[in-house]
Amino acid sequence: MNIFQQLQELATPCLVLDEARMLKNIAGLEERISSLGVKLRPHLKTAKSIDVANRMLANGNGPATVSTLKEAEIFAEAGVKDIIYAVGIAPQKLDRVLAIRKKGCDLAVILDSMAQAEAVIKASEKAADPLSVLIEIDCDGHRSGLAPDDQNIAELGKLLCAGEANLKGIITHAGGSYTAVGNEALAAFAEQERNAAVKAAGMLTKAGLPCPVVSVGSTPTSHFAKDLSGVTEVRAGVYVFFDLVMAGLGVCSKDDIAISVMTSVIGHQKEKGWITVDAGWMALSQDQGTARQAVNQGYGVVCDMEGRVMDDLIVSSANQEHGILSTRSGSRRRLPEIAIGTKLRILPIHACATATQFDGYQVIPVQKDGEIQYWPRFRGW
Amino acid sequence: MNIFQQLQELATPCLVLDEARMLKNIAGLEERISSLGVKLRPHLKTAKSIDVANRMLANGNGPATVSTLKEAEIFAEAGVKDIIYAVGIAPQKLDRVLAIRKKGCDLAVILDSMAQAEAVIKASEKAADPLSVLIEIDCDGHRSGLAPDDQNIAELGKLLCAGEANLKGIITHAGGSYTAVGNEALAAFAEQERNAAVKAAGMLTKAGLPCPVVSVGSTPTSHFAKDLSGVTEVRAGVYVFFDLVMAGLGVCSKDDIAISVMTSVIGHQKEKGWITVDAGWMALSQDQGTARQAVNQGYGVVCDMEGRVMDDLIVSSANQEHGILSTRSGSRRRLPEIAIGTKLRILPIHACATATQFDGYQVIPVQKDGEIQYWPRFRGW
Repeated sequence: MNIFQQLQELATPCLVLDEARMLKNIAGLEERISSLGVKLRPHLKTAKSIDVANRMLANGNGPATVSTLKEAEIFAEAGVKDIIYAVGIAPQKLDRVLAIRKKGCDLAVILDSMAQAEAVIKASEKAADPLSVLIEIDCDGHRSGLAPDDQNIAELGKLLCAGEANLKGIITHAGGSYTAVGNEALAAFAEQERNAAVKAAGMLTKAGLPCPVVSVGSTPTSHFAKDLSGVTEVRAGVYVFFDLVMAGLGVCSKDDIAISVMTSVIGHQKEKGWITVDAGWMALSQDQGTARQAVNQGYGVVCDMEGRVMDDLIVSSANQEHGILSTRSGSRRRLPEIAIGTKLRILPIHACATATQFDGYQVIPVQKDGEIQYWPRFRGW
Repeated sequence: MNIFQQLQELATPCLVLDEARMLKNIAGLEERISSLGVKLRPHLKTAKSIDVANRMLANGNGPATVSTLKEAEIFAEAGVKDIIYAVGIAPQKLDRVLAIRKKGCDLAVILDSMAQAEAVIKASEKAADPLSVLIEIDCDGHRSGLAPDDQNIAELGKLLCAGEANLKGIITHAGGSYTAVGNEALAAFAEQERNAAVKAAGMLTKAGLPCPVVSVGSTPTSHFAKDLSGVTEVRAGVYVFFDLVMAGLGVCSKDDIAISVMTSVIGHQKEKGWITVDAGWMALSQDQGTARQAVNQGYGVVCDMEGRVMDDLIVSSANQEHGILSTRSGSRRRLPEIAIGTKLRILPIHACATATQFDGYQVIPVQKDGEIQYWPRFRGW
């Protein structure tokens, strides 16, 4: 059986990964960041898969970024030696951080408050292990971190250096760039992110403190930054698969999107212009991140089994296990005739959210005459 | 350690289940439906847990409703003997249906088209096992099924009876009731649901066909139906836990909600009026089902560790692993001072969506001097 015949045999809904598209996405960003003279630190939260991480990490052992300690534990166990846990540390999690470090992984934490710094110092002293720390900077007001010119940056740095902690530097994330549209706006956002990080790093060096790491990144800014002077590394995650939010921003095209949800047609409501499929929000996620963009893709864009986009056909609404397909509002196209039982593939709105609904990937290998592979995923904290 | 001290020890985010609230919710609907003279067929898709199912199913072995074949397989294995798979059947799934039936569970499928009926007849004949079938009726235009007066109901019934299938009757679901507000509107919706099912059943009996089952249900309509004449059973699922969407409709109060997500404070943005916690959409889900209601609860309502609602404090926005707490827009309350590391509990917007983000429940047992139990959940298809 060829690859598409093998796909046809799988039970639906399931998560399909096109390895060739993924490898192209990985190589594209690696080349871009390396040409700007800095290091890429891939975020592993999108894929949560050792098989995918092996392909994202240049030499297999890091550097990497994670969003949960579960990710840190699993990837450290798999041999990754340099990880940033990029969510503000809660003091009660430091025992787990220290346990991961004890196994030979330099796991760094991030923080933006004196209370966190004091907890980190106490834990470092108790374990006689100077915890690696980055100070989180807020470059766009979207979530957490100190303002780039906040005097507390130097105060925090002094406190950490006076204690037993290992101050590594500055970290920021331009999450707000997900709402910027067009090349110029994205390039400007990347410059804003760089500028905030470099300014904050200056607060440390002016105070005579070390700042070997200046870490920035998001998938949109990493693809549009023109200059990364003063930055030492870039973090990004969604780029490995891409998704419709990224396509809507102009960061990728629909043909770059490497994952899709395979589904079966289970009904028709012809007078309403609906086709019902067995991929509801349990499979697609409830992310509607394109609703604020110029083109609302609902819960996903419909493709045929070979991955070709079916123009104007989207998942317009979703219940737990039902997806409703219809032509995009305003479209002149007729609803296509698609028989009960027909299999289709749906491109995701947000790769992180869709992928986490599944326990693994059904992988179309680069060698299209090969066999479908199964790569497990994990989740949890 | 008392129960709340034990809860404090758990890593966050985690899913907490208050068993006493759950048992009250179960008993409440059982009593109500039994007083209306019909049978309750609980939907197991909300909990996806054998421990919870054992408490929802009157005699432990059924009747039950499921939304995936994975649920059917697991609950049949656990001893449930009478299940409806309440999502329109795809022909390629019939082999799995037959395999489950072979193990002694009367698993019924639902359909609304000739193509599905033909596939069911063919599979029944091939397996020499007359598949149990219900014809799906659309009572409110929200998803799938035939109109209650559609002539195809009788045609489908005749086809199924002429073939080797076992026509059980009629099934409908008033999913549209999730947008009705207030006792009168909900009672009217319940009557609309009943009326559609009874009318459709009449189409079968008028044609001389059997219709032993007339199945209706949704959590809102099951709590507001005044009369169920002509109906034989009621299905509901969310009632086992309830959630903020149900509280917003007036189906329950916030104090009835049996599940919550335990989280830790990880940061402050005081000038913005924000507290950051480690429960983002990965833990809470992206369901924003109260956004269309009178009071928008964002991604959840914040409670203290004993489960007491903190007035006007909600999760106003969410990233993958960050939740942002703030006072409700328009509130006069000040943001409370909550120290880094403090644990809180978040009531869910939609119980089905939040619970599926976790692999199990941390259960506060009815006997509050006991120990926290762990009940596993499953997911997948």
